[in-house]
Amino acid sequence: MPPALPLITLLTDFGAKDYFVASMKGVILTIHPAARIEDVSHHITPHRIDEAAYCLQACYRTFPEGTVHVVVVDPGVGSHRRPILVKTGRYYFVAPDNGVLTPILNLEEDVEIREIENQRYQLQSPGATFHGRDVFAPAAAWLAKGTALSSFGRLIADPVRMNWPQPRMTARTIIGEIVYIDRFGNLISNISQTQIEAGQIGRPEIRVGEYLIGNLVASYSEGQVDVLHALINSNGMLELFLKERPASECLKVGVGAVVEMNG
Amino acid sequence: MPPALPLITLLTDFGAKDYFVASMKGVILTIHPAARIEDVSHHITPHRIDEAAYCLQACYRTFPEGTVHVVVVDPGVGSHRRPILVKTGRYYFVAPDNGVLTPILNLEEDVEIREIENQRYQLQSPGATFHGRDVFAPAAAWLAKGTALSSFGRLIADPVRMNWPQPRMTARTIIGEIVYIDRFGNLISNISQTQIEAGQIGRPEIRVGEYLIGNLVASYSEGQVDVLHALINSNGMLELFLKERPASECLKVGVGAVVEMNG
Amino acid sequence: MPPALPLITLLTDFGAKDYFVASMKGVILTIHPAARIEDVSHHITPHRIDEAAYCLQACYRTFPEGTVHVVVVDPGVGSHRRPILVKTGRYYFVAPDNGVLTPILNLEEDVEIREIENQRYQLQSPGATFHGRDVFAPAAAWLAKGTALSSFGRLIADPVRMNWPQPRMTARTIIGEIVYIDRFGNLISNISQTQIEAGQIGRPEIRVGEYLIGNLVASYSEGQVDVLHALINSNGMLELFLKERPASECLKVGVGAVVEMNG
Repeated sequence: MPPALPLITLLTDFGAKDYFVASMKGVILTIHPAARIEDVSHHITPHRIDEAAYCLQACYRTFPEGTVHVVVVDPGVGSHRRPILVKTGRYYFVAPDNGVLTPILNLEEDVEIREIENQRYQLQSPGATFHGRDVFAPAAAWLAKGTALSSFGRLIADPVRMNWPQPRMTARTIIGEIVYIDRFGNLISNISQTQIEAGQIGRPEIRVGEYLIGNLVASYSEGQVDVLHALINSNGMLELFLKERPASECLKVGVGAVVEMNG
Repeated sequence: MPPALPLITLLTDFGAKDYFVASMKGVILTIHPAARIEDVSHHITPHRIDEAAYCLQACYRTFPEGTVHVVVVDPGVGSHRRPILVKTGRYYFVAPDNGVLTPILNLEEDVEIREIENQRYQLQSPGATFHGRDVFAPAAAWLAKGTALSSFGRLIADPVRMNWPQPRMTARTIIGEIVYIDRFGNLISNISQTQIEAGQIGRPEIRVGEYLIGNLVASYSEGQVDVLHALINSNGMLELFLKERPASECLKVGVGAVVEMNG
Repeated sequence: MPPALPLITLLTDFGAKDYFVASMKGVILTIHPAARIEDVSHHITPHRIDEAAYCLQACYRTFPEGTVHVVVVDPGVGSHRRPILVKTGRYYFVAPDNGVLTPILNLEEDVEIREIENQRYQLQSPGATFHGRDVFAPAAAWLAKGTALSSFGRLIADPVRMNWPQPRMTARTIIGEIVYIDRFGNLISNISQTQIEAGQIGRPEIRVGEYLIGNLVASYSEGQVDVLHALINSNGMLELFLKERPASECLKVGVGAVVEMNG
């Protein structure tokens, strides 16, 4: 197990206006004053577990070994869904057991998953509606402080997994879909550079809805104005874009749109 | 007096786009490089002192003893309203004397209030428009650094208090109002669990506008779609919600709406 | 050269929703775990280099000597525009060479500019689209860690400069323009207090579009409702405002509007 690092990241759908994120930070710093807290995002669309899963898997590996990543997008708060704690070879994760860690569980090895059960590491509060403050923040703080994983609760082997769409590959064809729209309106697909290379798609033709793209460019700046282009983005995924304009809005293409590559 | 902790929180209506918050942080770190700064919110609706007061009282107690809480929602900046510094048993507060600390003054004991007068702990700048940077940030930094309260200015006994609505209670009836709408569109009232218990309202009927709610549920996940529900929220207050939808928008209910409980 | 301080600020157009800013922070903390990171803003309008330049010059001097200021507003990412590193008497800057540092180069003395060339201080990634993570964040982290400037790359003498509008001054007249709209809708011009004093404009008449302002007030609170006013703001610049209302929206005045002072 890597040594405990007092670095905790937060990824939620709590937004920036209310006091919810601050409450989590206050709880963490009360338990572990030396903890360092960095925000991943608090602007996940409310209750959109898939968006949070995408953001987490896109950046968690940039953080130092031992970082505790906390995710609170939790439409089922107060129900019987379990709070869980996951340890991988390099990181820790604290989240509701609602599938938000699915890509992590797919990508990581040496995974240990435990339910957060021990009341000693939770806050007692009037309502059952704010597990970010009462369950997940304290668990992260105690974990960063060096508390043994086994102290939190029992091992579990059946974490909830969400549907995490994988492209279908046939001879010289890959059929994937748009899985994320970023701030610039760029359309990020679930088709990876590795899959394109494995599919031996040398000079691809890419189709999304009524739009056809002739070839890949190397960077946004190579694009021509008002023409839909594609590139391999900084995470190694096929991404479609309009130069300096939001493709999602201009072309009315959203998450779930089918992307077909033929080569 | 608790030992000075170099933790400072910021709560403003400055938004996230401009350089205002960064200027405050720069000033704090120039005066006290070891200070740690955490954001409560910078998205208070401009000039809405009541929103800031609500957010502050909802989360300040999660932070460690000795934290300096800075609030800058200040429509009267540059006028004769005083900048003040408040010490309570466990915390410090730095804010304009415009009523934004009213709930703190109601809740806390052993309160010492001083005007920030000493020019030594202020920045000299061209205009009189940015007290966040020139008055409140330096005061917080010097305070976190251990400067004695008495150094900042004279004791004051007449801080401005805002109208902070309290529910009216009669036999088996509580009449309160909606005081805050959160990011999810949930409607938070000023009626507390303690008042409901004191009012011996066992099986309440709750009325807000034309809507009637039969009973309390324990968590958001217990709600039925498209039905207005009520619960005791994580701060012990009566809160009305629609499951996974914004009640405020869907039902056109806002701050100030009357909430009546009969039991 | 001032001693390296492990304080890094970030100013980008990445927004708050995606994982972009978090990726930069993760990279910085992996290289330099003791680094402290503060956000200036991530809400610059996408690709608006002038907005970023304005925000940076308005606040960078509040930060302690030795701070590394990182700016990533970079419409030309992946093109041949150079990544640069600038050292001034008191600060460091890391940015694309697209003119965003123009006001810094105008204001600061003892400026040393280098291209970031050394691959040793960059990350290798699949695409060429995320220099914030792969080029600028690592450079800032290595710099804050004490890496010698000369290690990054060659000196350059021809940084790109953007058009940074200066007021025209004639006898008793200054003609400037609105250069920034803040969160409150206040209209900030490029006319400084120093220029007004040099222009010997004692009792100015100020004209913007069809609006005429009789004299300066000292603070927002002195304004009358629904009357356009002017003051010298906290950065020493002429600023036009409506009391507690957004002048930009109410009066349809935006960046580039001409402001004429006659005295």
